Amino acid sequence: MSAIGDPKSFVARQARLRARLEEKGLSFLLVSNPVNIFYLTGFRGSAGAAVFGAAGEALLWVDPRYILQARDEARGVRIMEARRGLLRAAGEWLGRHRAGRAGFEESHLTCAALRDLKRSSPKVHLKPAGGLIEELRYVKDAGEIESIRRAARITVAAFDDIRHLLQPGTRESDLAAEIEYRMRRRGAEGAAFETIVASGPRGAWPHARASSKLLKKSEFVILDLGAILDGYAADLTRTVYLGKPGSRLRRLYSAVRDAQEQAVEAVRDGVRAGEVDRAARRALGRRGLARYFTHSTGHGVGLEIHEKPRVRRSEPQRLEVGCVLAVEPGVYVAGLGGIRIEDTVLVGSDGAEILTPASKDDWIIS
Amino acid sequence: MSAIGDPKSFVARQARLRARLEEKGLSFLLVSNPVNIFYLTGFRGSAGAAVFGAAGEALLWVDPRYILQARDEARGVRIMEARRGLLRAAGEWLGRHRAGRAGFEESHLTCAALRDLKRSSPKVHLKPAGGLIEELRYVKDAGEIESIRRAARITVAAFDDIRHLLQPGTRESDLAAEIEYRMRRRGAEGAAFETIVASGPRGAWPHARASSKLLKKSEFVILDLGAILDGYAADLTRTVYLGKPGSRLRRLYSAVRDAQEQAVEAVRDGVRAGEVDRAARRALGRRGLARYFTHSTGHGVGLEIHEKPRVRRSEPQRLEVGCVLAVEPGVYVAGLGGIRIEDTVLVGSDGAEILTPASKDDWIIS
Repeated sequence: MSAIGDPKSFVARQARLRARLEEKGLSFLLVSNPVNIFYLTGFRGSAGAAVFGAAGEALLWVDPRYILQARDEARGVRIMEARRGLLRAAGEWLGRHRAGRAGFEESHLTCAALRDLKRSSPKVHLKPAGGLIEELRYVKDAGEIESIRRAARITVAAFDDIRHLLQPGTRESDLAAEIEYRMRRRGAEGAAFETIVASGPRGAWPHARASSKLLKKSEFVILDLGAILDGYAADLTRTVYLGKPGSRLRRLYSAVRDAQEQAVEAVRDGVRAGEVDRAARRALGRRGLARYFTHSTGHGVGLEIHEKPRVRRSEPQRLEVGCVLAVEPGVYVAGLGGIRIEDTVLVGSDGAEILTPASKDDWIIS
Repeated sequence: MSAIGDPKSFVARQARLRARLEEKGLSFLLVSNPVNIFYLTGFRGSAGAAVFGAAGEALLWVDPRYILQARDEARGVRIMEARRGLLRAAGEWLGRHRAGRAGFEESHLTCAALRDLKRSSPKVHLKPAGGLIEELRYVKDAGEIESIRRAARITVAAFDDIRHLLQPGTRESDLAAEIEYRMRRRGAEGAAFETIVASGPRGAWPHARASSKLLKKSEFVILDLGAILDGYAADLTRTVYLGKPGSRLRRLYSAVRDAQEQAVEAVRDGVRAGEVDRAARRALGRRGLARYFTHSTGHGVGLEIHEKPRVRRSEPQRLEVGCVLAVEPGVYVAGLGGIRIEDTVLVGSDGAEILTPASKDDWIIS
């Protein structure tokens, strides 16, 4: 079952949002983040404004480009055409309906958009509502998990498809092109983020893009890829070595692998996300490598490639069954390069389930 | 000459920004939009915060992930490491330096980010600065034009590469995959936006994504594609017909083609962008098709696929030599489908130069 086209899931999400509005004492919520609009309605256009009311109102404004698409895709909302600004139309509607206190998404709305909205709807009392919808998105429902599972399967298959190209002389950017092509041909809607292929010293940049550099013998290669399907992302990183690694490099690889496995092991219902980060950090620390681990251990994955929770040292947010995380410790050594290993994992009632089971053993390509 | 790696262009842009700060009476500008940070410094990370001062201060905060990359890429700025929030670090620096009036980018900064910034830097007088950097980006310099030109050349070549697949039975999403793959293999960093392949009735959605639908005989197919190179985008749309179109469909195609050519003809130094829109609308209006043209005629193209100017009916902004525009009128008929033709054009001293000269003649594939 796909998350898209299942009208029931959208209706259920809107009902959960209404309950949250009542708890918060908000009569309306103005939604401007397209990802949240998709989550609540199924409409996947790049721009829209929606209003949800505690009493059951549900409206979606789109511009003329998107009218037919909205009629086809959106569920559970009245579709309105806005010719002179989406937020303005939504704001004017709130004004006419004596909205009282209407919440807005302060982590998405820009200062300029809020200013314009206040000008065009001076009587509406606008109030930052926090990440109400992001809170709903924190635990994935069955349709969402199925979409992420399929995106993850495609990601692993694409990685296996391109393994034969992992050899000296292949261009980083050609590898990235092949990876994205294979994901698409296997049914992905596209890449969830710009594919990273970082070889040799470039691997020490955790977010290097693929460059025109050729892979060389005696180098690590980091590959960080993810498919998107039905709007849902997956995230996978593997590191390989071209040639015969010496004992120091073998120890480095095992240290990262061990740290990643310890972190996945720490993933459990009710555990704080910070504990997952500390598990990775402890494993690297035991080998004196903590200072080479320059980023946090991971992040939630769903409609966005980075969402809640942040898996960082002091993060108090607790994991719940149905959360999906990317767990990706790494070490980065200037001049030498980097090693990162990442899986997308689902929090189940018995611990973590790895959704991206690509091999971590076959890392030496000689 | 590529825009990237030419330190002089970044230094020149920072100097132009300082002049604008002085005109505006701002001692500092806080820059949070990554695209603008790239424009001013060459740093291409996904997150950063920069401060530019009228007296020549230039600082860039990045998180630990990006330190090595920033040292390698950024020009003309002091690189600072922020471990507890980029904006917070920049705001605290402004506080320590008695910033007086510091501008911020109100069309980029979210309400939540501004609130946090004000909390952590209560003494800094923050003031919306408008789109100062977007104004600088409006006219492209020689390096930028060269990058867009090369991105456009790759886009046209990729379209030619996949022409043989324009036949009944090809899947829309496979065509999109092939297009993006060919762009990459020809040197693009990726697709500037999600490639649109919309056949038959789906073409009536101006922003349809490529779906699993197969191309069929007697249908229009809209292909909207663009490569990205050195961070710069190109934008091309062509529409083809599979089979033998009757006289009504031929008239529709020529009407759109004529409207597009009239609009390109209207592109000239000093002309208001609205005039370009009206030229397209008049041409369609003469054939009674104005109501099927449901979006604006185009948009600026550069580091972003949609930037200033908006080429819409009432747009007063005047074109200048060095502006780059996408000109893309279309007609959309529910049930039948759509026709859209688009070129990326450069405003020169003698009128428009088409950067995407793919054929508009070879539209009938029988």
